[in-house]
Amino acid sequence: MSTLAELGEAELLQRLALFAPPGQLEDDTACLAPDPRSLIVNTDVLVDGIHFSDNTTSAGDAGWRAVAANLSDLAASGVTSVDGITVGLVAPGDTRWDWVEGVYGGISSALNQFGGVLLGGDCSAGTNRLLAITALGRLGPLQLLRSGAEPGDVVVTSGAHGLSRLGLALLRQEVDPASAALNKALQARAIQQHRRPVPRFDALNSLLRCKPANLPWRAGGTDSSDGLIAAVQGLCKASGCGVVLQQSEIPRPNGWPQGKRWDHWCLSGGEDFELVLTLPPAWAKAWQIAMPGSHCLGRITEEADQMIWSDGSTLAGSSGFDHFQTGT
Amino acid sequence: MSTLAELGEAELLQRLALFAPPGQLEDDTACLAPDPRSLIVNTDVLVDGIHFSDNTTSAGDAGWRAVAANLSDLAASGVTSVDGITVGLVAPGDTRWDWVEGVYGGISSALNQFGGVLLGGDCSAGTNRLLAITALGRLGPLQLLRSGAEPGDVVVTSGAHGLSRLGLALLRQEVDPASAALNKALQARAIQQHRRPVPRFDALNSLLRCKPANLPWRAGGTDSSDGLIAAVQGLCKASGCGVVLQQSEIPRPNGWPQGKRWDHWCLSGGEDFELVLTLPPAWAKAWQIAMPGSHCLGRITEEADQMIWSDGSTLAGSSGFDHFQTGT
Repeated sequence: MSTLAELGEAELLQRLALFAPPGQLEDDTACLAPDPRSLIVNTDVLVDGIHFSDNTTSAGDAGWRAVAANLSDLAASGVTSVDGITVGLVAPGDTRWDWVEGVYGGISSALNQFGGVLLGGDCSAGTNRLLAITALGRLGPLQLLRSGAEPGDVVVTSGAHGLSRLGLALLRQEVDPASAALNKALQARAIQQHRRPVPRFDALNSLLRCKPANLPWRAGGTDSSDGLIAAVQGLCKASGCGVVLQQSEIPRPNGWPQGKRWDHWCLSGGEDFELVLTLPPAWAKAWQIAMPGSHCLGRITEEADQMIWSDGSTLAGSSGFDHFQTGT
Repeated sequence: MSTLAELGEAELLQRLALFAPPGQLEDDTACLAPDPRSLIVNTDVLVDGIHFSDNTTSAGDAGWRAVAANLSDLAASGVTSVDGITVGLVAPGDTRWDWVEGVYGGISSALNQFGGVLLGGDCSAGTNRLLAITALGRLGPLQLLRSGAEPGDVVVTSGAHGLSRLGLALLRQEVDPASAALNKALQARAIQQHRRPVPRFDALNSLLRCKPANLPWRAGGTDSSDGLIAAVQGLCKASGCGVVLQQSEIPRPNGWPQGKRWDHWCLSGGEDFELVLTLPPAWAKAWQIAMPGSHCLGRITEEADQMIWSDGSTLAGSSGFDHFQTGT
């Protein structure tokens, strides 16, 4: 099995071209036809040892997750149609081709599922394996911004939280399924959520469909890639608002254990890639009917920077997932 | 002076936001308004130890070069207006903030000069310092493609070649200026070209202005980032054509020494970021008048894969600048 240094750059580029539409990688640039919609663009970098690891992530999963993380940002901005991605691949010369092939296989699977093509990219040697992905898509009728929240909005999220962090813990054997009394279905769901997360275009589409006709296209929004609490804090800060969240409404997955660590993983585990939105109450109500998995967490208030639980306690600080200080 | 680990990710992102328009980095995605022109997108990765090095490149120069390399691909595709770039920054936690500040200073200088803004990005720790840049711009009336060459076209380039490679050699003290009889002006120009290369939007604009009215908007084109010969070979391969280049027309800089090594650096040194075009003869002639620094090198022929010098010898293989096998 060849390494990248044995293949050489020209052969590597030829092999990678098979993952793109014919001729797509022939030029250094990609061309997108004029489009009457706004363009949304997002860049994410995923580094071996920080965002993924051979211990917990196959090559295919690493490729899938890199795409899903990028596309989740597009979904959480209001993108309804994905053009595609560019991929900057960096790997040491002794990296085996089959790892790269696995990564691009995972990338292709994710694009097949969520839309878009491999538009272009670049590759280079480097000591650290990593993927730098830029995703491009077109905005639907609603641009979701962190600064879009308004007092009186309801805070809603598209699903349960903590699964990705639990999946990682199970893969790392940080947690003993028996002593934590985790049922098999929850374990399987958590590992799947960690390895093959899903950007919530489905939730966005249901949100767009259920808007009450009398309301304008205005909502606050982001995704929960850095954790649910961090997402809520980001919305409040950018909008100059406060929030009151209900302890009773923490979006725990079914079968989720009780306890401090478990609450922390749910609220700040990160990488769940759910939508976190602030909506006028009528729209939030319509969305909860349209999307039974969604959760209503609390209310946006006028008090800038006052981010509290319903018992008056302050929301725990942001996730602490600092890429310069922690690793996967 | 703080390191990135001491600053933490939140503080780092706040500092980086000062290099972008106000509020631009508040959301994970950037939004570009609808535009009637095609969008051109390009991603390039620049890795410490391969594309730049503290020995030869200041932080500001590394930032400038990363932008220039990307924008050169846009210019060589026909982009007449740059929207901006996203930047994926990877660096170890012990990297000093002043290095990052220098890089973003160089990025800002290049954007100020060539157009576009810092649209967004991401940053992460990693063992290897690198920049993954995606540039976005709008196509003018002519899309330059490698596959755009036709038999009978003249091969033209926007300037002399070899300067960047000479600049690198001087910075590395690979070459003795006295024994090579290099004049001071050439040395200064070479170092400047290596540190602060210029994407040739000026040359593209003059090309667009001087098209004879009776010709269609069709030309072959790429840039010489991988070397002049590699650029010509790429045009021929993608277009299914051959080429005959004139030895007498090698675009040597003024004062360039004679000899094999010097010819090799001129033809395959790489990173000169000049346009390499194939044009109908009348357009090539008009461009040579409009752009006195441009050079006419030879002719595109019908014989696919026959890439030769006028004496019948084969064009030397591509630059050998293989990122998986060589370093800066």
